[in-house]
Amino acid sequence: MKISARNQIKGTIKSVTKGQTTSHIQLEVNGTIITASITNEAVDDLNLKPGQNAYAVIKASDVMIAVD
Amino acid sequence: MKISARNQIKGTIKSVTKGQTTSHIQLEVNGTIITASITNEAVDDLNLKPGQNAYAVIKASDVMIAVD
Amino acid sequence: MKISARNQIKGTIKSVTKGQTTSHIQLEVNGTIITASITNEAVDDLNLKPGQNAYAVIKASDVMIAVD
Amino acid sequence: MKISARNQIKGTIKSVTKGQTTSHIQLEVNGTIITASITNEAVDDLNLKPGQNAYAVIKASDVMIAVD
Amino acid sequence: MKISARNQIKGTIKSVTKGQTTSHIQLEVNGTIITASITNEAVDDLNLKPGQNAYAVIKASDVMIAVD
Amino acid sequence: MKISARNQIKGTIKSVTKGQTTSHIQLEVNGTIITASITNEAVDDLNLKPGQNAYAVIKASDVMIAVD
Repeated sequence: MKISARNQIKGTIKSVTKGQTTSHIQLEVNGTIITASITNEAVDDLNLKPGQNAYAVIKASDVMIAVD
Repeated sequence: MKISARNQIKGTIKSVTKGQTTSHIQLEVNGTIITASITNEAVDDLNLKPGQNAYAVIKASDVMIAVD
Repeated sequence: MKISARNQIKGTIKSVTKGQTTSHIQLEVNGTIITASITNEAVDDLNLKPGQNAYAVIKASDVMIAVD
Repeated sequence: MKISARNQIKGTIKSVTKGQTTSHIQLEVNGTIITASITNEAVDDLNLKPGQNAYAVIKASDVMIAVD
Repeated sequence: MKISARNQIKGTIKSVTKGQTTSHIQLEVNGTIITASITNEAVDDLNLKPGQNAYAVIKASDVMIAVD
Repeated sequence: MKISARNQIKGTIKSVTKGQTTSHIQLEVNGTIITASITNEAVDDLNLKPGQNAYAVIKASDVMIAVD
């Protein structure tokens, strides 16, 4: 499957923290941590585990720009 | 200002493409391009220009995870 | 690629309307139209055209519920 | 109330799963399940229950397109 | 229609700026301007015009918190 | 830090409700409550507490418009 989301950043899953309905995934990309908040169902469905290669996928309209 | 968004990734603006109301910003981060779709008003207000240091800011709930 | 987004709805592209930076895609799913606003770059990259089979992909945290 | 969100898809609530702050709603639309992640307060306020007719409401800028 | 989105803020439309596919709406709420980026189709469908009463509707998961 | 998000609304934190992974923040702005759903990590990182001044930050593309 090829998706329209402009940002697909490859990394390694560092942690998976499950809540009652929502999980937090930390993905390490070149020493930077990207945090994703996704459903528990998605974690189970994709069988996400620390150490696994994965992509952070982000729609361009969800990215803001900041300057110092 | 300190913001709750978990993802604040530092890079350099590579391009600014303006439409009639919406602009696309390409930010280079360690050789990876992150694309942001923001308002023209924000581009003018922050005076965004290629070559400038900037951050991509992304709320954790807007990040998806994909696997091959 | 398998993605965490819980909603992946199959349909047929009915129209592609390009603006200067942002395109609107209409996807027909069982007689219902789903509208997506995506970048022109994504339209070009995926070579989206009317008549093509495609999926609307939506993160669960972007879905609201309404009642009459 | 009439809302700008382009996607308002009618279905029947199949399940309501409450976490500590966030609930997941499954809406059945023509045999397809649409999953929404909303606040517990919204579930209580709208008194959402399985079997009830409801709409999935999605802003066009939150819809991505994927192809096989 | 009653919607799950937790934030429904009443104001008066101050301006409607149309691009080729995307419009920007400025809503005045107690002297504060709230800016919305929506499709041209939504502007036409709701017949949005300056001077009109309207609501800014925002899902709780799209709100960030910042401190000085 | 200056951010592209068009909506930065000043108020006072009224409540902080923590779940297992996701917190809800209520911000009072001129008598109106704005609700934000953010990660527990952000609450801890910004040390958010009732009574504190804070901003609700919202990207324009996440704001919808509704009319009666």
